[in-house]
Amino acid sequence: MAATQGQVITCKAAVAWEANKPLSIEDVQVAPPQAGEVRIKIFFTALCHTDAYTWSGKDPEGLFPCILGHEAAGIVESVGEGVTEVQPGDHVIPCYQAECRECKFCKSGKTNLCGKVRAATGVGVMMNDRKSRFSINGKPIYHFMGTSTFSQYTVVHDVSVAKIDPQAPLEKVCLLGCGVPTGLGAVWNAAKVESGSTVAIFGLGTVGLAVAEGAKAAGASRIIGVDIDGKKFDTAKNFGITEFVNPKDHDKPIQQVIIDLTDGGVDYSFECIGNVSVMRAALECCHKGWGTSVIVGVAASGQEISTRPFQLVTGRVWKGTAFGGFKSRSQVPWLVDKYMKKEIKVDEYITHTMTLGDINKAFDLMHEGGCLRCVLEMHA
Amino acid sequence: MAATQGQVITCKAAVAWEANKPLSIEDVQVAPPQAGEVRIKIFFTALCHTDAYTWSGKDPEGLFPCILGHEAAGIVESVGEGVTEVQPGDHVIPCYQAECRECKFCKSGKTNLCGKVRAATGVGVMMNDRKSRFSINGKPIYHFMGTSTFSQYTVVHDVSVAKIDPQAPLEKVCLLGCGVPTGLGAVWNAAKVESGSTVAIFGLGTVGLAVAEGAKAAGASRIIGVDIDGKKFDTAKNFGITEFVNPKDHDKPIQQVIIDLTDGGVDYSFECIGNVSVMRAALECCHKGWGTSVIVGVAASGQEISTRPFQLVTGRVWKGTAFGGFKSRSQVPWLVDKYMKKEIKVDEYITHTMTLGDINKAFDLMHEGGCLRCVLEMHA
Repeated sequence: MAATQGQVITCKAAVAWEANKPLSIEDVQVAPPQAGEVRIKIFFTALCHTDAYTWSGKDPEGLFPCILGHEAAGIVESVGEGVTEVQPGDHVIPCYQAECRECKFCKSGKTNLCGKVRAATGVGVMMNDRKSRFSINGKPIYHFMGTSTFSQYTVVHDVSVAKIDPQAPLEKVCLLGCGVPTGLGAVWNAAKVESGSTVAIFGLGTVGLAVAEGAKAAGASRIIGVDIDGKKFDTAKNFGITEFVNPKDHDKPIQQVIIDLTDGGVDYSFECIGNVSVMRAALECCHKGWGTSVIVGVAASGQEISTRPFQLVTGRVWKGTAFGGFKSRSQVPWLVDKYMKKEIKVDEYITHTMTLGDINKAFDLMHEGGCLRCVLEMHA
Repeated sequence: MAATQGQVITCKAAVAWEANKPLSIEDVQVAPPQAGEVRIKIFFTALCHTDAYTWSGKDPEGLFPCILGHEAAGIVESVGEGVTEVQPGDHVIPCYQAECRECKFCKSGKTNLCGKVRAATGVGVMMNDRKSRFSINGKPIYHFMGTSTFSQYTVVHDVSVAKIDPQAPLEKVCLLGCGVPTGLGAVWNAAKVESGSTVAIFGLGTVGLAVAEGAKAAGASRIIGVDIDGKKFDTAKNFGITEFVNPKDHDKPIQQVIIDLTDGGVDYSFECIGNVSVMRAALECCHKGWGTSVIVGVAASGQEISTRPFQLVTGRVWKGTAFGGFKSRSQVPWLVDKYMKKEIKVDEYITHTMTLGDINKAFDLMHEGGCLRCVLEMHA
């Protein structure tokens, strides 16, 4: 039992006091976990574009002050009443997509979108008392996505904790909390790409490269990467991209370029940027009769996608995915095992490592082409 | 062998000389079928909204003068060189969606959208010589949808002819050339509705009612019909509609009304009107996580559908279908057999019968709520 059990822990966290202002490293008080909650010592966290989006102030559901972060790994410090599936000392990955195994969604067998704690996590608090476990001198700091991993200690709902192999290196498998599963699952769960298929991937960041890796594993015959940064192709080849198309090199709309390249369009396409115009192109570059386009990127609030209905009437399918359709508590441990067996890449996405104190520099790096994932060591 | 074989046949046809002007019953010369073609004596034809759409002039691909019509039944009069699958005397349904069994689409096993003759039928001519078989005093009259069934005799490609049970009543099964299969197939082939599912159907014309019939056969637990004409509910109940919603009775958007009625949305929805705003509502009334919306109606050219990508990222699927996904030559005969075994309705969609000479009155009727299908007797 940790000496801190039942105690408020004061630790370092990166606090977003308001939109678009640098994060500030503060001493934060983290309350003990209540019923159904787990307090986790975060060892490593990565940064993702969703953190940057909310930080930017463009997310109308963003609440400040808050502690961002949702792609991380750590060790359980203590658990609240009634928590049975993890205990202090367990190695875990906090999951922004919960899995309660009891709600209509979990029991449907058709989706990973558990609804159990969303009413609380959507507004930055915990279910039990509708309050935050974070505070600074008594002033509450909101949670974010039910994870808030930019803190040395965080409190999450027990339905949001995946218990993983204690042998797995936390500094690597933290990536299995968001981007890599999102890409792999888009291929394996949402599109269900078959061997021999042709695939187009729009956006070659971490998620797009994970899509490429998933498509390669599924046996796709051609994996066309589309990005406006030509420098990404060399890296992308290592993840399975077989051809590279830069829209800037063409006068024609990119959907037509891909249709021409593939005798009518691809079998599957994936939008991994969050740009609604690209989402349209991704749908329209699919083959008549059967082409399926999966939206993986998250568009800014209020933006809309559009196309002619003829695109769908003639057999294309438009769908999307969140966290790649993976059921978090059940399948994140399985992904960790796949990594340990060297069946999926993780290390290769980590281009930078820093410490929590460098978090603002890490955010700057995200907008540079050469950066895939930057992992922060939380207790350096 | 018909005495007319190899001869030009002069017969009556309803000619659309120009957009939006009444059709004119004319003596038309119908040339003999060339290689790969079949000349059919049309006995009965129904009218469909796609005929009215092209006639209205709103279809930018519409060509005039032409002979409209695509939902009919008849008997083969003669066949051109190389035609082996039908012979004179065979009872047939002309199919606007061909099935060649040889092209990339037919062989894919994933779609019914055969591409073999589209380059010709899309521009109102026959493949063999890129000319029309219809003329009036030497002036060519364009074909329409590869069928042109508003003529006592028509010439179609052999890949567009479904040979049916000669016992089937042509005055009924003519409906299996378009609307009824479109609705049934939307449920059985595109959506694949499972037993116990909830369904919403927007638009309770022939196609919408066939969707209801298909959903009932598939074991749907609730089949919600949506139409702005409340008088349609009584008829709709006979086709399987269990609940009726009139958007005019509600202040809330119709998608919210249906979400509220169904604890989060329906499992499947179908748009059977061709209205892009309704297509959006149909998608958005689907349940988060798995709801699938199928576009069945045909929107006017240039119109676009739109929604927030969040609708798809949270698990809804947007798709469409043409001719219900049925492979025409293979499956129309199967549908005829199902009708003969009383497993599907057909008679119940026929609300009016007239003769070819009354075709303009029949078009007027289409816009009245009480009309589902009007069947014209061609040789009365």
